[in-house]
Amino acid sequence: MDDLRRFLDEDIGQGDITTEIIVPEGDGKAEITCEDDAVVAGLLEAEEIFQIMGLVTEILVKDGTRVRKGTAVAVVSGSKNKIMTSERTALNIMMRMSGIATMTNDIVTECRRIDPNIVVAGTRKTTPGFRAFEKKAIILGGGDPHRYGLYDRVLIKDNHIKAAGGVLNAMQLSKNVPSGIKVEIEVENISDAVIAAENRADIIMIDNQSPSETKKIMEKIKSIDPNILVEASGRITPDNAKEYAGSADIISLGALTHSVKAVHFSLNIL
Amino acid sequence: MDDLRRFLDEDIGQGDITTEIIVPEGDGKAEITCEDDAVVAGLLEAEEIFQIMGLVTEILVKDGTRVRKGTAVAVVSGSKNKIMTSERTALNIMMRMSGIATMTNDIVTECRRIDPNIVVAGTRKTTPGFRAFEKKAIILGGGDPHRYGLYDRVLIKDNHIKAAGGVLNAMQLSKNVPSGIKVEIEVENISDAVIAAENRADIIMIDNQSPSETKKIMEKIKSIDPNILVEASGRITPDNAKEYAGSADIISLGALTHSVKAVHFSLNIL
Amino acid sequence: MDDLRRFLDEDIGQGDITTEIIVPEGDGKAEITCEDDAVVAGLLEAEEIFQIMGLVTEILVKDGTRVRKGTAVAVVSGSKNKIMTSERTALNIMMRMSGIATMTNDIVTECRRIDPNIVVAGTRKTTPGFRAFEKKAIILGGGDPHRYGLYDRVLIKDNHIKAAGGVLNAMQLSKNVPSGIKVEIEVENISDAVIAAENRADIIMIDNQSPSETKKIMEKIKSIDPNILVEASGRITPDNAKEYAGSADIISLGALTHSVKAVHFSLNIL
Amino acid sequence: MDDLRRFLDEDIGQGDITTEIIVPEGDGKAEITCEDDAVVAGLLEAEEIFQIMGLVTEILVKDGTRVRKGTAVAVVSGSKNKIMTSERTALNIMMRMSGIATMTNDIVTECRRIDPNIVVAGTRKTTPGFRAFEKKAIILGGGDPHRYGLYDRVLIKDNHIKAAGGVLNAMQLSKNVPSGIKVEIEVENISDAVIAAENRADIIMIDNQSPSETKKIMEKIKSIDPNILVEASGRITPDNAKEYAGSADIISLGALTHSVKAVHFSLNIL
Amino acid sequence: MDDLRRFLDEDIGQGDITTEIIVPEGDGKAEITCEDDAVVAGLLEAEEIFQIMGLVTEILVKDGTRVRKGTAVAVVSGSKNKIMTSERTALNIMMRMSGIATMTNDIVTECRRIDPNIVVAGTRKTTPGFRAFEKKAIILGGGDPHRYGLYDRVLIKDNHIKAAGGVLNAMQLSKNVPSGIKVEIEVENISDAVIAAENRADIIMIDNQSPSETKKIMEKIKSIDPNILVEASGRITPDNAKEYAGSADIISLGALTHSVKAVHFSLNIL
Amino acid sequence: MDDLRRFLDEDIGQGDITTEIIVPEGDGKAEITCEDDAVVAGLLEAEEIFQIMGLVTEILVKDGTRVRKGTAVAVVSGSKNKIMTSERTALNIMMRMSGIATMTNDIVTECRRIDPNIVVAGTRKTTPGFRAFEKKAIILGGGDPHRYGLYDRVLIKDNHIKAAGGVLNAMQLSKNVPSGIKVEIEVENISDAVIAAENRADIIMIDNQSPSETKKIMEKIKSIDPNILVEASGRITPDNAKEYAGSADIISLGALTHSVKAVHFSLNIL
Repeated sequence: MDDLRRFLDEDIGQGDITTEIIVPEGDGKAEITCEDDAVVAGLLEAEEIFQIMGLVTEILVKDGTRVRKGTAVAVVSGSKNKIMTSERTALNIMMRMSGIATMTNDIVTECRRIDPNIVVAGTRKTTPGFRAFEKKAIILGGGDPHRYGLYDRVLIKDNHIKAAGGVLNAMQLSKNVPSGIKVEIEVENISDAVIAAENRADIIMIDNQSPSETKKIMEKIKSIDPNILVEASGRITPDNAKEYAGSADIISLGALTHSVKAVHFSLNIL
Repeated sequence: MDDLRRFLDEDIGQGDITTEIIVPEGDGKAEITCEDDAVVAGLLEAEEIFQIMGLVTEILVKDGTRVRKGTAVAVVSGSKNKIMTSERTALNIMMRMSGIATMTNDIVTECRRIDPNIVVAGTRKTTPGFRAFEKKAIILGGGDPHRYGLYDRVLIKDNHIKAAGGVLNAMQLSKNVPSGIKVEIEVENISDAVIAAENRADIIMIDNQSPSETKKIMEKIKSIDPNILVEASGRITPDNAKEYAGSADIISLGALTHSVKAVHFSLNIL
Repeated sequence: MDDLRRFLDEDIGQGDITTEIIVPEGDGKAEITCEDDAVVAGLLEAEEIFQIMGLVTEILVKDGTRVRKGTAVAVVSGSKNKIMTSERTALNIMMRMSGIATMTNDIVTECRRIDPNIVVAGTRKTTPGFRAFEKKAIILGGGDPHRYGLYDRVLIKDNHIKAAGGVLNAMQLSKNVPSGIKVEIEVENISDAVIAAENRADIIMIDNQSPSETKKIMEKIKSIDPNILVEASGRITPDNAKEYAGSADIISLGALTHSVKAVHFSLNIL
Repeated sequence: MDDLRRFLDEDIGQGDITTEIIVPEGDGKAEITCEDDAVVAGLLEAEEIFQIMGLVTEILVKDGTRVRKGTAVAVVSGSKNKIMTSERTALNIMMRMSGIATMTNDIVTECRRIDPNIVVAGTRKTTPGFRAFEKKAIILGGGDPHRYGLYDRVLIKDNHIKAAGGVLNAMQLSKNVPSGIKVEIEVENISDAVIAAENRADIIMIDNQSPSETKKIMEKIKSIDPNILVEASGRITPDNAKEYAGSADIISLGALTHSVKAVHFSLNIL
Repeated sequence: MDDLRRFLDEDIGQGDITTEIIVPEGDGKAEITCEDDAVVAGLLEAEEIFQIMGLVTEILVKDGTRVRKGTAVAVVSGSKNKIMTSERTALNIMMRMSGIATMTNDIVTECRRIDPNIVVAGTRKTTPGFRAFEKKAIILGGGDPHRYGLYDRVLIKDNHIKAAGGVLNAMQLSKNVPSGIKVEIEVENISDAVIAAENRADIIMIDNQSPSETKKIMEKIKSIDPNILVEASGRITPDNAKEYAGSADIISLGALTHSVKAVHFSLNIL
Repeated sequence: MDDLRRFLDEDIGQGDITTEIIVPEGDGKAEITCEDDAVVAGLLEAEEIFQIMGLVTEILVKDGTRVRKGTAVAVVSGSKNKIMTSERTALNIMMRMSGIATMTNDIVTECRRIDPNIVVAGTRKTTPGFRAFEKKAIILGGGDPHRYGLYDRVLIKDNHIKAAGGVLNAMQLSKNVPSGIKVEIEVENISDAVIAAENRADIIMIDNQSPSETKKIMEKIKSIDPNILVEASGRITPDNAKEYAGSADIISLGALTHSVKAVHFSLNIL
């Protein structure tokens, strides 16, 4: 709620001078319409934005639903001035969250045609200050949020491995990780993958490899311990993601949050 | 600076458990490389991020410069642990700001081939909480930030006009706007444009019209008062923007901030 | 609302020990009376203060109304303890905002007898942390708020001109100002005024000149471009403001916010 | 420091567009001059403002010193842009704090000619959000800050007494006050003063009485317990304050903070 | 309320993943039971926690009441998910506040058997960020909160005395303390106590002395001025506190807040 | 750092009136001594507190070290006034963190005599607002922090199981948990433990059982999957913890943070 208040404040600042001067006081209703084929996300957040302004929202479509262009998704009631003042903040949240949910869902759908159990995951390549909303949008699109931050999983990447003096050293240091935390490590070849697997990594991320090379490394890992999760990452885009389906348990790609195409919404006073 | 601290805090939370456990203490250097052809932006913000962490940054390329893929843009020195802990926050700011600066600059370059005085402007369709950085990136790309919020210009849009009872009423109410504030109004046809121009709007936004229709309305406005600025808006995309060059003083498009493709950067411990 | 909570917190700290120990729990009503002839301002803010405390306010007089000494302006209902705990914060807001609205209105009234279109404006010489309320009070008194901060208008003052190397240089640099922002420049003589006018300043501020000298410069400016607004500023006080009516479009004076005489209000439990 | 950052942010918002566009980068010095005969206050706060901006301040006159009009009080060095950006915030703090210190000092000086031990005190009638600075200015002027808020002294006023059922009841309830807190009670006649004194109030405030009536009540109180402090309050103004000297230990008046005349300062780039 | 929101946020972070995934939506009720013989405290704070989450609380036992193990103290109604999400924050507040209230009440009861007027007080040895709640719990247990911070009483301790150059110097400097503030000084022997008493300290703290030595010093102080309050402090524990009853007006001990044994509460969905 | 500033602010409020009035300005040094046999924790936080105040700290003993009563642990240099003003906040952090580290270390030491691999863990029963510091103190004492909040592990407790309709249902729902998060479930008997183990819980918490019953259940779990971690919890105290060593991989107990005995420190100006 604090974030949402801050978002409103960012737009309103010392006042919506247009509405104050141009729009007579009075109550009304407005309809929000989705202007693209899309998976809708952010309606609960929009409702909270409107609620902060003293407005009432009727949500017509549940977050996470795929809708056709032109679908009415919500009706807002109350002071017309306040509807106009909060419109942009609410729509900005929806347009970005829906963009993420839609792209995620497109990739999930495509990949699951090949491997029905595949997990499509995001990364920490999010917009600063908006991560919680972007992670939620991934989930609404059917994806896995991956790490929320540096605090909820150990993920040993190339720079860490170099600093620790190799994969084996890094895995041995990881015995000190608190018992409730999973340990994931990034590898770029089969021999490092073997070391990671033999030292009981919970998840092994295969970075920057082709689908076939990824598959080969995955099979080696599973032969050592079938419970280890295998994640493909690096150079994966919305376009080539499906090529990795079948080569890993998890496919993660930054584009879900760093290169989003917004979904358009319009708000019309009825 | 408060925003930047909040961004760091979003990622670090109660601690970077990977680095704490895996990386031995010690000083070092890391190089940040731009992995795309792009206009670089966000280096000053990255420097502030690193400074909050007690690190020193040597900036190799000025924000706003167009660079080739593979160009080193900064070197960070100090605690290796702190470099790794702050890497993602710094790069996330840079990748988004540079994406905006690059797209803006591409469009500005294209449009100015046709009209060397054209202004390419953003909108308020920004990521909530990150607007100030996105507006700055537009400027670094050679664009105009347009409104920072509801407080720094009167912009009378369709919903306001409807509520006020038409363009004439809206323009008359706008006489109450404080003397330091510009008044802009959105019109969708030539007759409304005439009313707006005769009532001394500072800027007239022609919404959702074809380039040729926009040009016709612009000429009518300029015949009434050549000092009025004319802005084309609505349905303008990075692809069709150049078609509006020559038909307006200003072209504004939301895609500059709502549908950005990130620029990639990598950070390598030397 | 955040500001108002902070104001309450400033006064209450870890608790209103007097009320907690001395006043038995129980509901009641209290009347707020204006103890001066004044223009009332701050009643909406007082209502919000009381609302944060869970109290209900009946406002008897609209903000911006001129009332006689002894006029009841509001009735507050609810927990008597909470009324007493929030009394001072609410009245402090009202007493200062009403002081500003009253002084502004006195000057506006006097000046408009001479020039019915004159605008009386404030400055940025406000109490730190309370500016938004002071600007609102100016508007309620019939004045113009002038700049809310350094971000909503370009105002080129003596120090800027000196650093830029003169009025001409400064005006040329001002071509880079984003298209939605007005450009104002301060001049102290007729030749600088001419340069500013010829370079299309939106507003020219004539600083520290006598009424007659101000008028002479204004006439010169209007002969170059009648659309340029002329503002008189510097050494203008509540006492001499009316002497400038007729010599400028706008008269701005810092005393509206920096040297306010409070309006008295009392709150009595009924 | 948080307050000071907030004050700067209030003025700067998303940027000082004038300085960014008009002033070339470069270091310099500026002198701050006091433009009135006054007691200077707020220089330490101004120094902190400049320090937040990365500037260095040389303070020429200690806070609390009485200076002549035209006295240079500080020199600021560093980025000229940053000096101009922070000028107004720093001067706004100084002009208000110095106004309070000067008015306080004038009254203290006048009253002490009559009673060299008299204490001149403020009230809680301060500008919301700026109280700590206003209380400090009173102290710098030689006054007593009185209560900082509802938490640091019990002060039983008319509304409390009415709610408690009279002065005797209120004094008996005050036995529950924690042992480190002083108990003050407001009385309006001699019989209530006697009850308060017999029940061991630490301070008795005589409200809304003439100097002679105040003196009569004070003498009665002192005859019961000479250690009780007597405070005169209500209807006391800068003009009539001295008439109460000799009739009370403490004279408190709201005008010290609610009706201040600012002291003028100018900042000139050298 | 801000504190309580922060406490919730500390526990919930980016979401209660267990409840979101495991618990179906739906309303219900839960009962909170006290699992120890204890003085209950923190129920109002728990109610506020639940209210922030949109839940309704029926409080069955007033804060400050001594209850038997197994007593139901509150019933919470509303979304079962939200009850589970807020349970730990609410109970953590209650378990610590009740621990403090219980220990305080035990000591007060024991000491008042010996001296019915004795005051048992806390210190500033509280948990950082939680002091206001701990002070309130002391009051609910029948104790005196003592200083809330460095701002609400002068307390001259050994380091201050050393820096001032002895007790006499320190007491003379204390004449500059604002008139509403009590002055307390710490002494460790009878001669310093005499100096403090003769210089009109409001409270004299006898530090680190045995009960009999404390009594001797108290009697000396009272012979000089019976209105001075005497406080015993230092080396006083819950076990030996009663030995000081009769030797001082006030007994203060840090253990009330620094070494608390929590009271257990359970929350069961009905 | 924000937390630490808030802690300082809680104590200092509008000023340390004792030090301001009693202590002459001047630099000096102070030594901090540990007054108990203890494991020291919180020295880095104390150093940050002093640094905020502009003081320099020399740390003599590394956090996590066991020291003898009377050991000097740090020396602080700089303004004597500032040392006294920040003393209590710094010591309050140290006394509580060291209390937790010491109790944790005592239990770890005792339990590891029996099972050298045993993990001793905390719970979420922490002081609201101070959790991060308490978790860190557990780690410094050799323990495991367990969950930092509701966001970093799924822990399905009795109320969740009841709401989900049993252990089997709950475990099946847990298949939806994001792939990086561990799933822990609480069981109270052997049959529920079997269901949890067969459904691939990462950790099984055996709640409220005797050591021997705990051991029996653990052996059953390990016979199903030896990789599942077993945690004993409920009714475990510092006194009986060692009885569980050998019966579980992890022993968790709330007393580590909810019923701490502070370690004493003194600060003496040299």
